[in-house]
Amino acid sequence: MKILIFGAGALGCVVGGFMKKAGHEVILVGRQEMVDAIQQEGLYISGIWGNHYIPNLPIFSKVQDEWKGQIDLILLSVKSYDTEQAVLDILPVISDHTLICSYQNGLGNVEKIARFVGMERTIPARVIFGSRVLKPGFVQVTVIAEPTALGRLEQGPDETTVRNIAETMNTAGIPTVYTENIEGLIWAKVAYNSALNPLSALLDVPYGRLMETEETQMIMKNVIHELYAVAQKKNVPMIIPTPEEYIQLLFYKLIPPTAEHYASMREDLKQGKKTEIDALNGAIVKIGEELNIDCPFNSLLTNLIKAREKMSINAVQE
Amino acid sequence: MKILIFGAGALGCVVGGFMKKAGHEVILVGRQEMVDAIQQEGLYISGIWGNHYIPNLPIFSKVQDEWKGQIDLILLSVKSYDTEQAVLDILPVISDHTLICSYQNGLGNVEKIARFVGMERTIPARVIFGSRVLKPGFVQVTVIAEPTALGRLEQGPDETTVRNIAETMNTAGIPTVYTENIEGLIWAKVAYNSALNPLSALLDVPYGRLMETEETQMIMKNVIHELYAVAQKKNVPMIIPTPEEYIQLLFYKLIPPTAEHYASMREDLKQGKKTEIDALNGAIVKIGEELNIDCPFNSLLTNLIKAREKMSINAVQE
Repeated sequence: MKILIFGAGALGCVVGGFMKKAGHEVILVGRQEMVDAIQQEGLYISGIWGNHYIPNLPIFSKVQDEWKGQIDLILLSVKSYDTEQAVLDILPVISDHTLICSYQNGLGNVEKIARFVGMERTIPARVIFGSRVLKPGFVQVTVIAEPTALGRLEQGPDETTVRNIAETMNTAGIPTVYTENIEGLIWAKVAYNSALNPLSALLDVPYGRLMETEETQMIMKNVIHELYAVAQKKNVPMIIPTPEEYIQLLFYKLIPPTAEHYASMREDLKQGKKTEIDALNGAIVKIGEELNIDCPFNSLLTNLIKAREKMSINAVQE
Repeated sequence: MKILIFGAGALGCVVGGFMKKAGHEVILVGRQEMVDAIQQEGLYISGIWGNHYIPNLPIFSKVQDEWKGQIDLILLSVKSYDTEQAVLDILPVISDHTLICSYQNGLGNVEKIARFVGMERTIPARVIFGSRVLKPGFVQVTVIAEPTALGRLEQGPDETTVRNIAETMNTAGIPTVYTENIEGLIWAKVAYNSALNPLSALLDVPYGRLMETEETQMIMKNVIHELYAVAQKKNVPMIIPTPEEYIQLLFYKLIPPTAEHYASMREDLKQGKKTEIDALNGAIVKIGEELNIDCPFNSLLTNLIKAREKMSINAVQE
């Protein structure tokens, strides 16, 4: 299987490195500084999955025309706000048998990919392990909550194909399973991120401190209630059936083990970068609008984060 | 006329100082450090109304029982979150002829005062000049937007009495007028403060920068629309009749001259102090609840500020 990893950030490098190590043909596309580092020195992976050195990993700053017809699987590991541009970039090397897997965060990525290439070549994933770039060429796996899950939506690729890809990744050392309910898993992760990320970023506190005041609890509850209203009207098969149960789970099971974590959104704002808010709270608002469900809490949080984004991008550029 | 100024902050000291200078009998009640400074060195007022030194200004840290029967007017110049405690503190020196003027910010102060002493002794004011304490005993008048306005609500003191008090203050050098629509003026100031203060504090930017992004404009619009929905159901005689017109006024007339100002709420949060959010956005939410009008934008802003308050009070105390 010949795999193109489009987006050689921390996540893309980890997957690319493990797949290459397992003997697959892997090509990465990434930013110039990552390209230079890996071409010259190879890729180093450290962290909870051990230390690995992967030499001779092909990496480019752009898709090459001569790959056309050769790529079996493209893992899209770019930020959600870059999905459309990424799909346009990979279009030239997509052929009849190429599958595209959204190895991304948030809502709307799968739909954006499928709009160009069709749902029958689009594989949704729920990725929940943490990784970071220490410096170009050096990435670290920081935490794994659950195996990566691959699945299929209606009119998606056949189940056996997706199961085989999941099994291949799992065998390569990236814990991965096939799931019957990928939509539910993706929405569950969006619920977690939408409740915690903007508040952690706006208030500059780790997740655990969001449990300290009734006001932050109240905001998280409203975010979740709005998300569930939208999900239920959209017939999303939520894994936790009611918002009340999800809130209990979030408050007393999910937050405690990650109490010390800050949202990466906070770091994005500090560095004057874009955030993935549009694929989280912003997506809830947008889908809500289509379904005539008002989501004022998610809307205000989205707008506050986007205002902060613009203001801090300006500040960093000044 | 014997006047008790309860709350010898910047505002209370300015009014007390000018009334004393004009020959009225004035007593102040304030915090110990202000009491010590003024007892020892007198009061200094600087700023746009000139430099003034007021010696021999009686100031105490508590209400004295022997004042009972002697006080004609009490100016309440404490923060809105201290109104109830302040009314309890002054109760012992209130007699049949004592009037209480809420020289304060936000919604709900007049109602809290009237609950204890009756509306017939309660005078609402809209105060819109800026002042600050440079150090104990030294206060500065920083800016005046419009004269202070005094008025009366239904079942309030008779108009002549209120007009006389306004005239007395005006003659003493504190620009003051009588208004037929004090409720409209108070709500107009609340509209301005509710739209700008929490955003300036949360985003850490001056008012002018809130015009820079469509997201902040959108939040301000929603805050104003919710406020108007509540005000209209409550039959408040709004000075600007529609939210659309008020938003135009706010964006293009009110914000530009104060573009460089930060909300004092931002400073309160930085110093780990309480804010007046409960008398602004929080009051809109509360009145909205009584009238069955949902105010999610004001609710979320209130909760975010209260969360920041609690978290920064903790941080300052740590």
